[in-house]
Amino acid sequence: MTWQYRTVHCGEVSKEHIGQEVVLNGWVQKRRDLGGVIFIDFRDRTGIVQIVFNPEYNKTAWEIADKVRSEYVLAVKGTVVQRDPEAVNPKLKTGEVEVHVAEIEVLNDAKTPPFVIEDEIDVDEQVRLKYRYLDLRRPEMQRALLLRSKASKAFRDFLDSRGFVEVETPILTKSTPEGARDYLVPSRVHPGEFYALPQSPQLFKQLLMISGLERYYQIARCFRDEDLRADRQPEFTQVDIETSFLSMEELLPMMEQMVAHVFKETIGVDVPTPFPRLTYAEAMARYGSDKPDIRFGMELTDVSDLVANCNFKVFAGAVATGGQVKAINAKGCGHYSRKEADDLGKFAARYGAKGLAWMGFKDGEVKGPIAKFFSAEEIDALKQRLAAEEGDLLLFVADKPKVVADALGALRSKLGEELGLIDHSKFAFLWVVDFPLLEWDEEAQRYVALHHPFTRPKDEDLHLFETDPGQIRAQAYDMVLNGYELGGGSMRIYKRDVQEKMFKALGFSQEEARKQFGFLLDAFEYGTPPHGGIALGLDRLVMLLAGRNNLREVIAFPKTASASDLMTDAPGQVSPLQLAELNITTTVKEEDEQE
Amino acid sequence: MTWQYRTVHCGEVSKEHIGQEVVLNGWVQKRRDLGGVIFIDFRDRTGIVQIVFNPEYNKTAWEIADKVRSEYVLAVKGTVVQRDPEAVNPKLKTGEVEVHVAEIEVLNDAKTPPFVIEDEIDVDEQVRLKYRYLDLRRPEMQRALLLRSKASKAFRDFLDSRGFVEVETPILTKSTPEGARDYLVPSRVHPGEFYALPQSPQLFKQLLMISGLERYYQIARCFRDEDLRADRQPEFTQVDIETSFLSMEELLPMMEQMVAHVFKETIGVDVPTPFPRLTYAEAMARYGSDKPDIRFGMELTDVSDLVANCNFKVFAGAVATGGQVKAINAKGCGHYSRKEADDLGKFAARYGAKGLAWMGFKDGEVKGPIAKFFSAEEIDALKQRLAAEEGDLLLFVADKPKVVADALGALRSKLGEELGLIDHSKFAFLWVVDFPLLEWDEEAQRYVALHHPFTRPKDEDLHLFETDPGQIRAQAYDMVLNGYELGGGSMRIYKRDVQEKMFKALGFSQEEARKQFGFLLDAFEYGTPPHGGIALGLDRLVMLLAGRNNLREVIAFPKTASASDLMTDAPGQVSPLQLAELNITTTVKEEDEQE
Repeated sequence: MTWQYRTVHCGEVSKEHIGQEVVLNGWVQKRRDLGGVIFIDFRDRTGIVQIVFNPEYNKTAWEIADKVRSEYVLAVKGTVVQRDPEAVNPKLKTGEVEVHVAEIEVLNDAKTPPFVIEDEIDVDEQVRLKYRYLDLRRPEMQRALLLRSKASKAFRDFLDSRGFVEVETPILTKSTPEGARDYLVPSRVHPGEFYALPQSPQLFKQLLMISGLERYYQIARCFRDEDLRADRQPEFTQVDIETSFLSMEELLPMMEQMVAHVFKETIGVDVPTPFPRLTYAEAMARYGSDKPDIRFGMELTDVSDLVANCNFKVFAGAVATGGQVKAINAKGCGHYSRKEADDLGKFAARYGAKGLAWMGFKDGEVKGPIAKFFSAEEIDALKQRLAAEEGDLLLFVADKPKVVADALGALRSKLGEELGLIDHSKFAFLWVVDFPLLEWDEEAQRYVALHHPFTRPKDEDLHLFETDPGQIRAQAYDMVLNGYELGGGSMRIYKRDVQEKMFKALGFSQEEARKQFGFLLDAFEYGTPPHGGIALGLDRLVMLLAGRNNLREVIAFPKTASASDLMTDAPGQVSPLQLAELNITTTVKEEDEQE
Repeated sequence: MTWQYRTVHCGEVSKEHIGQEVVLNGWVQKRRDLGGVIFIDFRDRTGIVQIVFNPEYNKTAWEIADKVRSEYVLAVKGTVVQRDPEAVNPKLKTGEVEVHVAEIEVLNDAKTPPFVIEDEIDVDEQVRLKYRYLDLRRPEMQRALLLRSKASKAFRDFLDSRGFVEVETPILTKSTPEGARDYLVPSRVHPGEFYALPQSPQLFKQLLMISGLERYYQIARCFRDEDLRADRQPEFTQVDIETSFLSMEELLPMMEQMVAHVFKETIGVDVPTPFPRLTYAEAMARYGSDKPDIRFGMELTDVSDLVANCNFKVFAGAVATGGQVKAINAKGCGHYSRKEADDLGKFAARYGAKGLAWMGFKDGEVKGPIAKFFSAEEIDALKQRLAAEEGDLLLFVADKPKVVADALGALRSKLGEELGLIDHSKFAFLWVVDFPLLEWDEEAQRYVALHHPFTRPKDEDLHLFETDPGQIRAQAYDMVLNGYELGGGSMRIYKRDVQEKMFKALGFSQEEARKQFGFLLDAFEYGTPPHGGIALGLDRLVMLLAGRNNLREVIAFPKTASASDLMTDAPGQVSPLQLAELNITTTVKEEDEQE
């Protein structure tokens, strides 16, 4: 490494360099021999430039270049030259120039990779994950990593500018009785005891507020040992924030500005603020979801009053037994066949709907098996309520409110996508607020905290602790983008009397509360300021910024749905000595382990 | 929270605010009642301001203030007033003003804390750690957290400006056979298998170089299950860096600039660059340490040639059997008593020295039991070699080079401190370079890698693989500050032939190498660029920036020497159900667990 250190990046060679001698470092993307002249598409992190070897420029260099193959690592020195007009490649940023090479050094050779290093390859994801180090060479993956790095920086810059202090909280911490399943770490020094990896730094960030730090943030790794879905990873990253002496009305606008800053700095998009707000009740009523995609309409419409006395027993019966009937209007789907409508019914069934009734308007007639149960007046009233016209399709679910919301909410999302109602260039943010504080747990026959037991109730609902705890609304909020929950948070309880009411509503005695939350309750007694915060999922946010639909596309070394790393083959066997030192044994029989 | 939100921080109230109405939020540091007027030292993250309650300003506020105690949380509104000249407090930044309070709200009360919230308290560290949330309220701890946040930001800003990309690497990864003891995490989905927490992102950062990322960094959490010393924590943070296409000669100056940037941005100190460099051999010879404190002299001096034939058999014998005799000159210690010299001998014995010989020059005489074995010429020669004068004390160790270095190196550090030779305002950086690549392992009767098996040898030493592998010097480097190793790194092997020579020197067959390093060796075959990097210990660096001598003073929630968190009481017991789900059991008997 003397002359070989690059003077310019491949993707940045431009007409300004014409006539200059440059040194480039990178990888061979493609090599072609045209009539004894060798053309190489030469790639580094920034892009591709064409380098040319001709015996006339330098015979030795040309001879070496004749032997290089894809993914060889080279250092080359040469002169930047304007391409002939007919050789200009408008698809390439550097397409007006090329580099005529006088010196070359092969820094390393390469086997033929298992897939081509370029975008939009059709390769099984398992293979990509096994050879992640090659997959990450592809420009779209490099862009994703750079975007992620930029997003983190934008978050930090904003938070630093607002007086937030970054604090690192422990990864080896204590297992908590509530919440998701913990990952455990056996302690060698304390036989029979375990650390837990944090599901979030919740506890520590509240303690930092008690410590008077006032504004905390951390881009924090969190862990949940749950069964994984496409949009979950066993370890994930959240932008974790907590503040003191601010109310929701100060915090939420600040968080909007933060997210707007991140979008501007990373992808140049202006996010309008303030974000609209929907109460939880309204979101569920209008969209059947607490994370609605508001880029399109097709809202859920309650028709219970219109069908309460109709002849269709399923509808009338649902209303009579405390349920409801709601519908959405699938514009322009009046031509759907019975088969197509039945398929939608099967889809709705996955969300708990016992049936999906439908009514299509086509050729001036009302289609569908339920049509005969309704009078012309009833049908007119339904059409009017749902703004249905000739050519439209109404889809009804009659059930308990939760089932109606789940099924019609899911149908709405599906149809919104399929009918092309969604503007994919749009970023539609909103806050969902006024979540219920408590949820009735049928199994345990008691209230449980919807968020966590330290979530602060709305001041005006405090009196409901005595009369109707289920109606108490929390000072909790979720930030929602395009149908995804980006994150959420709450103001926390800081007054002892409120905390006691909360524990009472949860059915905890003083002793039980102490046993479960121990030292945190102690901490609360030494001068706790009003505080609250939020946590945003960085992986999901970057996924949306990058326009991808899978978290694995924006994580350098992700895990599969079975929490495996296909590259390192983690998790794996360990030696008996390691387990002995940790005072544990596995309960797996040897024949099982072979599987 | 309406009027109560602060308009200015306590520590920032100044003469510019005189006459203005301000709102403050914070904690009661101290409350005094002087003739019916209440003075409160009111504290937030930024400092303290005096707030005054007088029935004449507002009776209600005064009555409330009469009941508040230390650590109560208040919001107050009042007018900033210039203090009377005799009431000015020059010790306080805000000491020229005070706030006359018209409104007060007690946001929360507080029990009496177990210790006073102020600097330089004399409290057992165990108590501080148990009540860490109160300990962190103390100004010096707040300063430490802010300094740490600032240092992280300075590292990031520098690295971002140099094209480094921040990448998050996994925490749930695979156990590696070499290195320190891993923390393990049982997998629920893969019974009998385990993840390991990373000792460093070494593997992943090299893979990112193979991925063509070119410049990577991460402020990374790392884990080692080792027996802890005062300056170790089971989880620690390192500034982890890797680059491609750069040689040591490009990387090291860049790292110097980075550290200089951090020192300038955090504590305003100008660090001169370039850093001096010492070879490992030179550092060991002159300072008896591979992390020498070069803020003072008192170098180790070889006198083997002068004493090879002397009558003192211990010296002559050591030289004759391949050992050496070295000495340091403790200036001005010629008056040490035999007892004092013997105590130094006991200290040296801890580092393996079988004895410490001494020779003092006092009252024109040569003191010490060994003096009689030396001729006047020999003594003159020793004095001259060590620049010893009347009043000095020479301390000798005769042994194998390692023992001589360890014992005299430790003595040098001890005496440097005790004799006040160290300028504690100084930051003396250096690089130690040219570490040996291999170390002979007596037990295993083979060479082992001093750093790791991918450390690149110096080009000019490659031929020694065939003849004398122990003499090969590595392209490895440690950054040293004031006797502490801040971090280290190396250029990595990227050529297959060099890697094969390395494995051969370590006694690995191809199959063994594959078994141990598996997919990493695969990865190396697909076009690996020349690369290398470094990792700096953030905890230690911040400790030195803060002028502290214990890592726990710069970590928000540290662990004790037995890897416990005294606040959360982690690690702890978990439920049998949790263990059953993970397919493990503990081998600890119940009576043991009670201990």
